[in-house]
Amino acid sequence: MNRMRIGIIGSGVVGQTLGAKLANIGHQVVLGTRSPEDLGTKRGMQKTSLGEWLAQAGANARVATFADAAQHGEIVINATGGMVSLDALSAAGDRNLEGKILIDAGNPLDFSKGMPPVLSVCNDDSLGEQIQRAFPRARVVKALNTVTAPLMVNPAAVAGGEHHLFICGDDASAKAQVTGWLGEWFGWRHVIDVGPIDAARGTEMVLPLWIRLMSGLGTPMFNFRIVQ
Amino acid sequence: MNRMRIGIIGSGVVGQTLGAKLANIGHQVVLGTRSPEDLGTKRGMQKTSLGEWLAQAGANARVATFADAAQHGEIVINATGGMVSLDALSAAGDRNLEGKILIDAGNPLDFSKGMPPVLSVCNDDSLGEQIQRAFPRARVVKALNTVTAPLMVNPAAVAGGEHHLFICGDDASAKAQVTGWLGEWFGWRHVIDVGPIDAARGTEMVLPLWIRLMSGLGTPMFNFRIVQ
Repeated sequence: MNRMRIGIIGSGVVGQTLGAKLANIGHQVVLGTRSPEDLGTKRGMQKTSLGEWLAQAGANARVATFADAAQHGEIVINATGGMVSLDALSAAGDRNLEGKILIDAGNPLDFSKGMPPVLSVCNDDSLGEQIQRAFPRARVVKALNTVTAPLMVNPAAVAGGEHHLFICGDDASAKAQVTGWLGEWFGWRHVIDVGPIDAARGTEMVLPLWIRLMSGLGTPMFNFRIVQ
Repeated sequence: MNRMRIGIIGSGVVGQTLGAKLANIGHQVVLGTRSPEDLGTKRGMQKTSLGEWLAQAGANARVATFADAAQHGEIVINATGGMVSLDALSAAGDRNLEGKILIDAGNPLDFSKGMPPVLSVCNDDSLGEQIQRAFPRARVVKALNTVTAPLMVNPAAVAGGEHHLFICGDDASAKAQVTGWLGEWFGWRHVIDVGPIDAARGTEMVLPLWIRLMSGLGTPMFNFRIVQ
């Protein structure tokens, strides 16, 4: 396996889950967070403090600033909540994203008005497009945003992995590389390319149904299988 | 089988497909359309003229006005495009919908700005909610809007029927009845109740992804299976 330098922007459940898995399989991971000096506090939706996370992630992992994480990465993953993604990526720095594949796993869910959340952008725009416009030199690939964090890194945990992930982006070779990595890193066998980055409207707008299904099923461990 | 009087609002592909199937299995169907006297012209997305449709639908079917169709029905189905649903249901008449189950199969897709279409309402409102608000005495059940017309009436045509339909609405007994009819009429075995009528936001917001998938797969004959 090609050992890669991966920068993760965001240290919540998604960033921690992706980062620990990637470090555990041998990649060099820097997890970017707003206050990297604070390893003891559980913030926001974090299940573990960053100190506990470091213990799980092992010797291949570090905690640093957003900018350090982005600079470190040959590839960068946006694992922040969609409401703060543009701010966090600005702090990461345009120059640190230049020419790199940026996997956007975010969803622009606004929980400020209660449950269920609404999307802060949708229909004629999307978070994926906003990120691509704000960082035109990054090669944005929208992916992983339609499944819960534990399933992102372990698709086999549901139905033997027989279900689908949707990716989109304007850069065909970036999408092909990400599709390969999703298989190599996590075991994703079924990745559907749904089009250019504006198809992120579609994959982000699935979230309102996803949230209803999660409530009804009583678990986030499910996914969509496309059947023909 | 209980022979029912069913009023269908809308004579496009969805109305024709539902109406012909329901008439063929013995229900008394009145297909409501704006100009019921014109049986010869193929209008809009119609694949067959209403005269041709009558020949297929057989002796249990009639073509009439929206109001006649709604008055005829013990239950009423909105099969119009979402951009004109409120107008068509107003023409059908509030009194003709009173106390009746109204199955809303519409999607508020606006094709006026080109492809792919955007939704004319979404995120913090939905067509299903608009209809329930406009016709508070109708018992609105959102259903069937996430699959193509031929699949609505024949789920077995894809993956042996092993895939899911989503319904929602504020009236639990109406949803239970519709779930039963979907099985009896068409063979739907997997219907997931995703909540009150505001969950229509979720099922309508699937359409942008659905359209991208249709383009990529090259066929509308697919559906989502929820796997756990």
